[in-house]
Amino acid sequence: MVQAAVMGYGVVGSGVVEVLMQHQSSIARRTKEEIGIKYILDIRDFPDSPFQEKFTKSFEDILNDDEVRVVAEVMGGVHPAYEFTKQLLESGKSVVTSNKELVATMGAELLKIAREHNVNYLFEASVGGGVPIIRPLSQCLAANDVIEIAGILNGTTNFILTKMIRENMSFEDALAMAQQLGYAERNPAADIEGHDAGRKISILASLAYGRHVYPQFVHTEGITHITLADVAYAASWGGVIKLIGQVKRLEDDTLDITVEPMLIERNSQLANVDDVFNGILVRGDATGDVVFYGKGAGKLPTASAVVADIIDCVKHLKRRKYFDWADGDGSIVKPYEETAFPVYLRLKTTMPKQELLNKMQQLFVNVREIVRANAASDEYAFATDDMVVAERERAIAALKEDGVEVLSKIRISDL
Amino acid sequence: MVQAAVMGYGVVGSGVVEVLMQHQSSIARRTKEEIGIKYILDIRDFPDSPFQEKFTKSFEDILNDDEVRVVAEVMGGVHPAYEFTKQLLESGKSVVTSNKELVATMGAELLKIAREHNVNYLFEASVGGGVPIIRPLSQCLAANDVIEIAGILNGTTNFILTKMIRENMSFEDALAMAQQLGYAERNPAADIEGHDAGRKISILASLAYGRHVYPQFVHTEGITHITLADVAYAASWGGVIKLIGQVKRLEDDTLDITVEPMLIERNSQLANVDDVFNGILVRGDATGDVVFYGKGAGKLPTASAVVADIIDCVKHLKRRKYFDWADGDGSIVKPYEETAFPVYLRLKTTMPKQELLNKMQQLFVNVREIVRANAASDEYAFATDDMVVAERERAIAALKEDGVEVLSKIRISDL
Repeated sequence: MVQAAVMGYGVVGSGVVEVLMQHQSSIARRTKEEIGIKYILDIRDFPDSPFQEKFTKSFEDILNDDEVRVVAEVMGGVHPAYEFTKQLLESGKSVVTSNKELVATMGAELLKIAREHNVNYLFEASVGGGVPIIRPLSQCLAANDVIEIAGILNGTTNFILTKMIRENMSFEDALAMAQQLGYAERNPAADIEGHDAGRKISILASLAYGRHVYPQFVHTEGITHITLADVAYAASWGGVIKLIGQVKRLEDDTLDITVEPMLIERNSQLANVDDVFNGILVRGDATGDVVFYGKGAGKLPTASAVVADIIDCVKHLKRRKYFDWADGDGSIVKPYEETAFPVYLRLKTTMPKQELLNKMQQLFVNVREIVRANAASDEYAFATDDMVVAERERAIAALKEDGVEVLSKIRISDL
Repeated sequence: MVQAAVMGYGVVGSGVVEVLMQHQSSIARRTKEEIGIKYILDIRDFPDSPFQEKFTKSFEDILNDDEVRVVAEVMGGVHPAYEFTKQLLESGKSVVTSNKELVATMGAELLKIAREHNVNYLFEASVGGGVPIIRPLSQCLAANDVIEIAGILNGTTNFILTKMIRENMSFEDALAMAQQLGYAERNPAADIEGHDAGRKISILASLAYGRHVYPQFVHTEGITHITLADVAYAASWGGVIKLIGQVKRLEDDTLDITVEPMLIERNSQLANVDDVFNGILVRGDATGDVVFYGKGAGKLPTASAVVADIIDCVKHLKRRKYFDWADGDGSIVKPYEETAFPVYLRLKTTMPKQELLNKMQQLFVNVREIVRANAASDEYAFATDDMVVAERERAIAALKEDGVEVLSKIRISDL
């Protein structure tokens, strides 16, 4: 019997205990090892829990118990999760986690500590919830150069956008509904501002390119400024708006990495990933496009990914898994202002149409007008081709000087 | 330097050599081991190949060379691939393969031999080409009971059906086009009769349920009888026809396993898997639905899966991976005649319509008529609810006795 501990008895933590208990015999049959839970760490009391005798409020109980070989950190947040994880790894215990914030901000350091102490730090559940992505990506990596990763990485914002697209619901109403259904938290900032997706693309990029890409180097935009007018123009253009986390290796070996809403074509493999589902596309030089799709969050899916990691640690008690990357800094990321891509623009102006069209042709590359039904007479929308961000910003400044109001500006994806 | 050998220098084999050579330095960086190719076995001569000195026509060269630790069997067919694989495993070498026919027919025995000799027999490339499915499935399995697996497992038939659905091309024309493009072989039987998909669902079922499900126990139907009329009725019904390999565990612990064309709803996760792409859905009790999607065949995708397995063997030279199952027999499979599902029926009769409708209501469960434009006046189509196959066959026999011709009968999927 190998003993494990679970730190944090919230949604994911209680799911981990449930999945482990429920599959105990099938796990034992498959791994030839029984896995027990010796401690559950939480500062709260759970007087009705059947696991009464396992609860502790003291981290030291876990840290100092040599029987505990694997610990699931499902507390969330950076502190004290970071300090706990560090001490556990240093004491020779493997740690698995669903804590994307911790992996995205401290991953390189924690992986280094794990390496030095010959234990594992695994985090399959930190991206994609129950969708296996960390392991398959590392398998793709084995025999591929990863050209690009692009994904719908946050279920809450995808739910909101789906409601806007399918039911013409406003952003505010869709957010309220997501909160009512428990998909969005009372403070939804981490989701709707793009930070959650930013952490996830940080983790995928670090794994794929071997150096830590910290979230502060990832251009991060949320969906709070997306309107139903934009959704309608996207439909006219032939696609939908999705919040995409994306990383590509550029020719100069820097990374174009971003989280932002993008227009994607209707027949793109990610366009039909709706509601709370996640979809992640990995483009390898040999495999071509491979897409992973499933529920990106939720108690049992996420818990089952944590449990899969626990099992993997148990199978590799004295061996390290090859999930690893070195530290990194901002130099591996191409500054956003220097990246180039096409955009959709929605404008408001009383300027005569022909004058506006001439101006647009002058300032932007390969401009096409997009129309929608019931647009106000002073509203216009355009799609433009690739342009370096800084150059486009100058063109937009010139437009503004002529009294044109820029209502929306959304990246057009090449997916 | 760990030495490998490649048996078979066809499409996949030459791809394996190419991928291994091309990624040699990145593989070495990741695995801390360089992998060399010492032999390439083929009975043909390749005078223009840059790997001249590696070619051999003698299997014994590989078998007797203790330096060779991992062998890629990419010859295809059961003989002599089976005899070669067996001898290699017995001599303590790990073997990886893309040979679905061999894994589906001899997998249990070869896995047992691998187990007894503490080496690995890996076969990621046997299902899904470059789409990682064997490893992710085994990861899903770690913390899930697999409720169902359903997939579009054969790119050739999916290409043909896509042409029929999207371009109203006849089966014969679409097949000819697939052959022209190199997607279908000159003798396309294994694809269009469903045998290739049958082998793949055999492998997935064996892995998921722990006992070998031999292809002869899998009900296998191809797509040769699908007509454009069926495609049109499927569209009226609200879906498309796809060749689906499917396995579900039934309440009595037997498996409902089949390969056959099915009507699937337009909003199903597999309905948009088109052209030569494969899509595989795994339904776990904890993860819910997870879908894997990508190119199911092709030189480099398949080769990169083989290479990933080679790398995995190199990383686990003295340890076994947990891809394994016991032998099995027909008793684990529910006889097809005893399984229950709904169908679509296309009929031809001069019987007055009301009489036919009455008869259908009598004989079948919950019958709904489906109509299409331009149908002949003596053609009718219906969807019926769940019915045990043997019972439905009796109802169909009764119809026939009344002079009704049954032109088509296609399963309706619950996906």
